[in-house]
Amino acid sequence: MKLYDAPVAPNPRRVRWVMAEKGIADVEVIPVSIPDGEHKTAGYLAKAGLPQLPMLEMDDGTTITESLAICRYLESLYPEPNLFGRDPKETAIIEMWTRRAEMLIATPFMLGVRLSHPGFAALEAPAPEVGAWNQQAGLKALKVLDRRLGESAFIAADRLTIADIVAAIGIDFARIVRLRPPEELTHLNRWLTAMRERPGAKA
Amino acid sequence: MKLYDAPVAPNPRRVRWVMAEKGIADVEVIPVSIPDGEHKTAGYLAKAGLPQLPMLEMDDGTTITESLAICRYLESLYPEPNLFGRDPKETAIIEMWTRRAEMLIATPFMLGVRLSHPGFAALEAPAPEVGAWNQQAGLKALKVLDRRLGESAFIAADRLTIADIVAAIGIDFARIVRLRPPEELTHLNRWLTAMRERPGAKA
Repeated sequence: MKLYDAPVAPNPRRVRWVMAEKGIADVEVIPVSIPDGEHKTAGYLAKAGLPQLPMLEMDDGTTITESLAICRYLESLYPEPNLFGRDPKETAIIEMWTRRAEMLIATPFMLGVRLSHPGFAALEAPAPEVGAWNQQAGLKALKVLDRRLGESAFIAADRLTIADIVAAIGIDFARIVRLRPPEELTHLNRWLTAMRERPGAKA
Repeated sequence: MKLYDAPVAPNPRRVRWVMAEKGIADVEVIPVSIPDGEHKTAGYLAKAGLPQLPMLEMDDGTTITESLAICRYLESLYPEPNLFGRDPKETAIIEMWTRRAEMLIATPFMLGVRLSHPGFAALEAPAPEVGAWNQQAGLKALKVLDRRLGESAFIAADRLTIADIVAAIGIDFARIVRLRPPEELTHLNRWLTAMRERPGAKA
């Protein structure tokens, strides 16, 4: 299998983090430069369908984009440590928290960065008001996570799951526009410090 | 099991549509009025954690919100017809297309409606520029689906999957602000007409 990867982007980082937690070392990682437009070449689009990263290419040539689809597929091949749930009920709870982390925090912060920061202007038409709205939406939702992390060491279960990885990467990406969780969100900050110390955080 | 449901909102409609396709008739459906703020009462929040609909309450009292987490859980109990994939590879492809349908179309259209239409002003601070940006983003992404539906009767497989349901409901919701797929998207419109004729569309 091959993973088409981009270094700064948040979605490829999810896959690298999952691979690190699972100790997956036999996937070939192929860097694709977004600043150089390599994700928009005819060759890449013929495989991916859309200018999206990451992309996983299976040994039979099947390609999938979308980080969480890739991560769940990797879990089917490398089941431990379990990140998506061990039975339907736990899977549902983890998916609920993963979606909350993504839709309330990671996606707004991603748009908040991409539409606001001048470094992205060559890739996407800037929309500063839309970016600012998204930044505020993400910041506001951090309270939901802080409340949850006041009653649980991790977001969705009594162990690390994909929900923690999605949330931590979403929050980290907002550092590009100097957004950080307010200090009073003590539970969130305790968890975030622990997440950043995991080997997967550096993957 | 009980499903807490709201009539107009797009996310509860996903669950009702899935239940109709699977012929699930033994889940008690409890209407919750968003205009009357019933999703923000202390009693509802004690169960759901957030003012989100739909919510599924299992027989053991476990509650989950997030429509797709609920739908996947229902599939574990009512496997046929299969909507999420029969093996890891098919599951990955269906999840990829479901995420594309959601992130490129359904979520932008939902925000495009909620932030723009005066009927939602009592529920959420209007942000017309953000709403307009989202409407345009969703409209632009319809071309991706049209291209896909030029080569496939359904979006993610050779049969109906959750990706079709998410996409059709996202497009339908945009009718509130009079957005419709352009006529030249002939593949998309052919598929949309067929989707609207399914019994699940009326659920």
